[in-house]
Amino acid sequence: MTKVLVFGHQNPDTDAIGAAIAFANLQKELGVDAEAVALGEPNEETQYALDHFGLTAPRVVESVETEAADVMLVDHNEFQQSISDIEAANILAVVDHHRIANFQTADPLYYRAEPVGCTSTIVLKLYKEKNVAVPKEIAGIMLSAIVSDTLLFKSPTCTEEDVAAARELAEAADVDLDSYGLAMLKAGTNLADKSEAELLDLDAKSFPMADKTVRVAQVNTVDLDEVFARQEALKAAMVAENAEKGYDLFLLLVTNILNSDSELLVAGEPREKVIEAFNVQLVDDRAFLPGVVSRKKQVVPQLTAAFEG
Amino acid sequence: MTKVLVFGHQNPDTDAIGAAIAFANLQKELGVDAEAVALGEPNEETQYALDHFGLTAPRVVESVETEAADVMLVDHNEFQQSISDIEAANILAVVDHHRIANFQTADPLYYRAEPVGCTSTIVLKLYKEKNVAVPKEIAGIMLSAIVSDTLLFKSPTCTEEDVAAARELAEAADVDLDSYGLAMLKAGTNLADKSEAELLDLDAKSFPMADKTVRVAQVNTVDLDEVFARQEALKAAMVAENAEKGYDLFLLLVTNILNSDSELLVAGEPREKVIEAFNVQLVDDRAFLPGVVSRKKQVVPQLTAAFEG
Repeated sequence: MTKVLVFGHQNPDTDAIGAAIAFANLQKELGVDAEAVALGEPNEETQYALDHFGLTAPRVVESVETEAADVMLVDHNEFQQSISDIEAANILAVVDHHRIANFQTADPLYYRAEPVGCTSTIVLKLYKEKNVAVPKEIAGIMLSAIVSDTLLFKSPTCTEEDVAAARELAEAADVDLDSYGLAMLKAGTNLADKSEAELLDLDAKSFPMADKTVRVAQVNTVDLDEVFARQEALKAAMVAENAEKGYDLFLLLVTNILNSDSELLVAGEPREKVIEAFNVQLVDDRAFLPGVVSRKKQVVPQLTAAFEG
Repeated sequence: MTKVLVFGHQNPDTDAIGAAIAFANLQKELGVDAEAVALGEPNEETQYALDHFGLTAPRVVESVETEAADVMLVDHNEFQQSISDIEAANILAVVDHHRIANFQTADPLYYRAEPVGCTSTIVLKLYKEKNVAVPKEIAGIMLSAIVSDTLLFKSPTCTEEDVAAARELAEAADVDLDSYGLAMLKAGTNLADKSEAELLDLDAKSFPMADKTVRVAQVNTVDLDEVFARQEALKAAMVAENAEKGYDLFLLLVTNILNSDSELLVAGEPREKVIEAFNVQLVDDRAFLPGVVSRKKQVVPQLTAAFEG
């Protein structure tokens, strides 16, 4: 049987890595020669979670071709967020909780998407459907993924299913959900020792909208002022990335995980789409977005509507 | 709550209509204001099945806009096979067993695809997951869909799950699987009283491949010679459809449901892609394809590879 690589999106977050580990383990239990890999190194939040549960970060891969493997995608489907040569890959399965776009296959496949807050919530359901027990350390990384994606249940993407799954997994992983969750989120807000380019790359995704390419990066913090003290340098790095990578518009969403608000920083054009999408004025290239914490639910659909409406 | 329309693809076959009826009923049981509709009138095979189980054909709709409804798609996802204004629709869910292509949403959704022979096989699984009983007449139309899509289990798309689902549904519907199945398939092979345009439209789908549009129609028969006695008239109708609808290449797959073989008739260009895809010569615009009965598994992927390889 051909080897199967299981991975999440580029610039992996805790769900991209956690769901890959969990889904690959399930596939192995079902007799598939599956390996969880990643399209990048874990960020500090994810590394904190991996360390806490004694897991090793998945091997980083850059191309499917050199691996001679079939693939299963978790936590993403859009090709521009996937491995570089995804178009040549044989995609056997997708487990995801995002919109579907820029995705296609030549053959029928297994595709499981649900509009819940976290891929790992769906993966837990798959374990149950297949009557496979979740090992303790894998319960831990799945729990971490749910805490990360829902910002400890504060994101509007969070559903009752995510909360129930997290509670169940916290018990299986033997951790206190609230205290572990907050400690893990804070571990991801250590931004001071990162360059501007690193900050922009921590959790960033590209989206084609109309004929433009929009880059949306997000960083979590407990102190917006600390991040915006570096506004000019961040702006310059965004302009440089636009030029280098061909993005038309770059949005940096800086999210205060304690207050559940975000401040937006914008570089590139067309900025009138940003103004239209969020019904805000840009002052000094910035706008405050009260209550906005979810790129998926509170940023990308609004931008898409402004671009394509 | 907004009304939800549930429908299968254009030129509906028994699965497009049967899965819509079954999935809409499940949604209603779950509290959704769902209605099964169809993008066309049932063909003779489907009408036979509906009559046998005392069901009414779903209402035909032409546009989502005039219905002011959200939608759930069954048995298809590609927009060019869906309702005319699908791009403006809010797609809540998809249940399907085809490749994914030319499909996108702005928001996360429920998407359930599995590489099985029939959508109704997946819908049966969803009934079980939700602990909802399948009513007798709905078991009958679901069973009919499986028989139709798998040609009574002879298609290479047929999986063990389809066979098991069909046996279970036959029991629930209180019919003898083999005798009912063959009678239903034969009801769909009454081609003599149809015009060439009607034959070409019975079960036809369009596929963008590279920069071309390929139309693939399929008709079932118990007598290939009867169909090919009308070859010249069919050919002329295919040429006319290419000109009228903008197809580049038109393939008519005439399938002998007793022998599980097909004969191909081709109009348009680039025909060298057909030669390459099936490794055949075209003699008098025809080629015999032994063992080929499945457009999805034995025609579309091969053509896609030839066009995009």
